[in-house]
Amino acid sequence: MTRLHELLWDLPTADAASAAEVHDRAAHILRPSGALAWLDELAEWIAGWHRTSRPRVDRPVGLIFAADHGVAAVEAVSAYPSEVTAAMFDAYRHGRSTISAFARQVGATVVAVDVGIGKPTGDIRVEPALEPERFDQIVDTAAAAVDRLDGDLLVVGEMGIGNTTASAAIAAALAGGETAAWVGRGTGVDDAGLARKRVAVQRAVRRIAGVTDPIEVLREVGGAELVAIAAAVVAARHRSMPVVLDGYVVTASVLPLVMIDPTALDHCIVGHCSAEPGHRRLLERLGKRPLLDLDMRLGEGSGAMAAVPLVAMACAGITEVPTFTEWFGQPD
Amino acid sequence: MTRLHELLWDLPTADAASAAEVHDRAAHILRPSGALAWLDELAEWIAGWHRTSRPRVDRPVGLIFAADHGVAAVEAVSAYPSEVTAAMFDAYRHGRSTISAFARQVGATVVAVDVGIGKPTGDIRVEPALEPERFDQIVDTAAAAVDRLDGDLLVVGEMGIGNTTASAAIAAALAGGETAAWVGRGTGVDDAGLARKRVAVQRAVRRIAGVTDPIEVLREVGGAELVAIAAAVVAARHRSMPVVLDGYVVTASVLPLVMIDPTALDHCIVGHCSAEPGHRRLLERLGKRPLLDLDMRLGEGSGAMAAVPLVAMACAGITEVPTFTEWFGQPD
Repeated sequence: MTRLHELLWDLPTADAASAAEVHDRAAHILRPSGALAWLDELAEWIAGWHRTSRPRVDRPVGLIFAADHGVAAVEAVSAYPSEVTAAMFDAYRHGRSTISAFARQVGATVVAVDVGIGKPTGDIRVEPALEPERFDQIVDTAAAAVDRLDGDLLVVGEMGIGNTTASAAIAAALAGGETAAWVGRGTGVDDAGLARKRVAVQRAVRRIAGVTDPIEVLREVGGAELVAIAAAVVAARHRSMPVVLDGYVVTASVLPLVMIDPTALDHCIVGHCSAEPGHRRLLERLGKRPLLDLDMRLGEGSGAMAAVPLVAMACAGITEVPTFTEWFGQPD
Repeated sequence: MTRLHELLWDLPTADAASAAEVHDRAAHILRPSGALAWLDELAEWIAGWHRTSRPRVDRPVGLIFAADHGVAAVEAVSAYPSEVTAAMFDAYRHGRSTISAFARQVGATVVAVDVGIGKPTGDIRVEPALEPERFDQIVDTAAAAVDRLDGDLLVVGEMGIGNTTASAAIAAALAGGETAAWVGRGTGVDDAGLARKRVAVQRAVRRIAGVTDPIEVLREVGGAELVAIAAAVVAARHRSMPVVLDGYVVTASVLPLVMIDPTALDHCIVGHCSAEPGHRRLLERLGKRPLLDLDMRLGEGSGAMAAVPLVAMACAGITEVPTFTEWFGQPD
């Protein structure tokens, strides 16, 4: 039993009454009923988790976890060397990354948390990514990071050279099908690198053939930032904070949660569909439709952050627009 | 020769040098090359029309044209009576509509222009929507409205009970195919209304069977706000102001332009794909991919306004993020 298992106990549910109130209001607002479709559903969803019939998104916050991967240190599965993880982390800290630029447009803050830069995980081809003790430490670090946040909508993102390899291993192990189909080019690896990546994922998946607990799969073939994301998403649930998921790595990170508790991602939406081919298949598996589909494949929470204005507008469409009765006055 | 024909003369082109500079910068920015895909292309596009290598979207502006339709006054082709046009116009003016709420989230202003509320167009089943003189007046009004705007990205929208009937007639007349396939439920007309709407469109299209000039088609079976949109889009081009197109009505309004000059919409992107079924087909015809696909069907520029943050973020992703060289310093 890991700390992540414990964190999954007693998950709160959304406030059905607040959501129902928004649902009812949406049907009477000064526009053709149903004209905003999905956006009205987003406002309902925020209302349920914020436990208010006047949903708003005023303080979105991005939380990025970064770490290094043992497999990337010893095998060229990425187009970039492991040192890039630390360099990008520095850019997040100085507000100079793409997610930072997006966040400023959205009025969001960004917090970057180092959960293992320079402390690579085990080489997942031959050994567990994380020993149980470190796994639990990462879960606690991530949960504490969420508890420190001041925000009303959480965007989770990641950075870690080699982490689409780990994501493919999780997806292949938990969602099944042909392993190679879960392996994409990530940041843009060449054909030889893609071949190495496929072999690495196949070896990792074969190594853990007997592991049935999805969270153990995450510990065995995941990575530090992937564990942190899973933990942060559950910690946000305990704060009733809705979450916008990002691309392939984030989605693979949270897949184990929903296999333990099918309601575990009810407080999450998917910001975008990545160009990484496995992502669309994972989303189908989760039954979640992405808000955006723009061929992005950056990670660092950028696709999720790009979707934040839609959620904010959805709420404004409920709270700032009168109903027909409010606008025209009471009927005689 | 109408005023709209004249407006289509001597259209300026984008500044290729500025666009190329952004294209080059995008390839060297502190992220995997190509990771933002389409968003980098949006920044290039803004750069070309703004004629600067440092594209920004700081002052988006929504321009909504509203008018009444003769066919809606005499035949129930809409779920709502014509009086709703005036009521909604009032809501725009008071900042209480959905587009107004969206605009506040985006930092945009909204300008609503009455081009024929209470002055319905002709019943397109039996007569031209607009006589040549009124057509030209509307073109001048719309162009003048654009000239008064202070903005760096134009969102065009519309309101007019009955205007999806006019849009379907334009699309059927100009894009061909089975007329009924261009007719959808608009604001939510019932089965009987949909049948009346199909008949109305068929009659209108049959009436103008001999008309070959696309702008004459717009005058014959369009509507005042549709003409205004077409004129505003061309006027924006003369100011080198990029435009975000909205849903079915806006797209049908500008279809004649591209049939006169294939480059006429080079300064336009499509904000979203509407739930109105003809819209997707029209977009395929135009070869334009919508940024959003959220099942919205409101009109009033709401889907286009919802896409504005993506354009602003695309620009920030170029101008506010360093290149690898800027971040790491000059290579040795």
